[in-house]
Amino acid sequence: MPQQRGEETRGRILDAALKKFAMAGYDATSVDDICAEAGVSKGAFYHHFPTKQAIFLALMQGWLGMIDMGMEAIRKDTVPESLISMTNLLPGVFAAAENRLPMFLEFWLQASRDETVWKAIIAPYRHYQDFFSKLIQDGMVEGSIKPVDAQVAAQVVVSLAVGLVLQGVLDPHGADWEKTARESMQILMNGLANKTA
Amino acid sequence: MPQQRGEETRGRILDAALKKFAMAGYDATSVDDICAEAGVSKGAFYHHFPTKQAIFLALMQGWLGMIDMGMEAIRKDTVPESLISMTNLLPGVFAAAENRLPMFLEFWLQASRDETVWKAIIAPYRHYQDFFSKLIQDGMVEGSIKPVDAQVAAQVVVSLAVGLVLQGVLDPHGADWEKTARESMQILMNGLANKTA
Repeated sequence: MPQQRGEETRGRILDAALKKFAMAGYDATSVDDICAEAGVSKGAFYHHFPTKQAIFLALMQGWLGMIDMGMEAIRKDTVPESLISMTNLLPGVFAAAENRLPMFLEFWLQASRDETVWKAIIAPYRHYQDFFSKLIQDGMVEGSIKPVDAQVAAQVVVSLAVGLVLQGVLDPHGADWEKTARESMQILMNGLANKTA
Repeated sequence: MPQQRGEETRGRILDAALKKFAMAGYDATSVDDICAEAGVSKGAFYHHFPTKQAIFLALMQGWLGMIDMGMEAIRKDTVPESLISMTNLLPGVFAAAENRLPMFLEFWLQASRDETVWKAIIAPYRHYQDFFSKLIQDGMVEGSIKPVDAQVAAQVVVSLAVGLVLQGVLDPHGADWEKTARESMQILMNGLANKTA
């Protein structure tokens, strides 16, 4: 089953790259290092990934894909309830981000110097911006959210989440981040939710 | 006036380091590079800074000091008004952060591997957390802010600001960030401000 073996090799390369990037950093890790860690030939590597950067992008997309699935799965009766339960995803995001922080930081560094990487970094921001904007519009239609500029309200949700993840990753013992995230969203909802609904 | 000349040399070293870090990156910049750019001897360099890391810390502290002065200067009649006018500082923060973004990212990278750097990164977070917590407590005393957990409300303000600065720096043309910041704070204040005050 060559198809299955191909998938397995691709996964081994991704795991090896994640480990090497986290330990030694993105710049200091060569394709040779990744091949040695994964136990694959350079030919097999380049069959799956054209460049080291392509692995970086695949790892990021995998992480964002997990967050997406989690967000789609949590859909409660009303939009304010949905937004509050989404904060339950944050501990998992923190845990996954903690290992990958050095990698993401290096990625951002590259983004400030490389157009392809920049686009890959900006795309998920805009994706989450659209996701929450649509959710808030749904809330206004169902009457659970007050009339607001959905774009701006979505921006607040995204900024709050980004800020919380960043601080949670930098300072894991600085606060009970799960509780802080839930209560933060509650304060935001106090301003957004329609109490007469 | 040796005192004055010392200050002038220190400033020249800081300017040279900022320029070099932004262009070539922190890791790739040596003390020799900074001395050449500043036109100072290595002796003069080490008279002012024990290590390259000390320069990094001084540059960050200088930037945070500017933000602090700005925040202290903007104090309006009520706490909600003060918080909304603080968003006027953000364009300046964006402008200063944009040049320094690669440097901060490298600094964060170091923080994930070095205890001294980590403490220097975490200190301002906790400082702003305390600043806004106290401001929100003042608001509850004056009656302009609803009874809330001041720690959590401060966390929301800090996370929102961090998230906005990060996105504004990454994607300067993705939104009108000044307007977005003001309207975001307004949405937050809808949940925090006491309308009966």
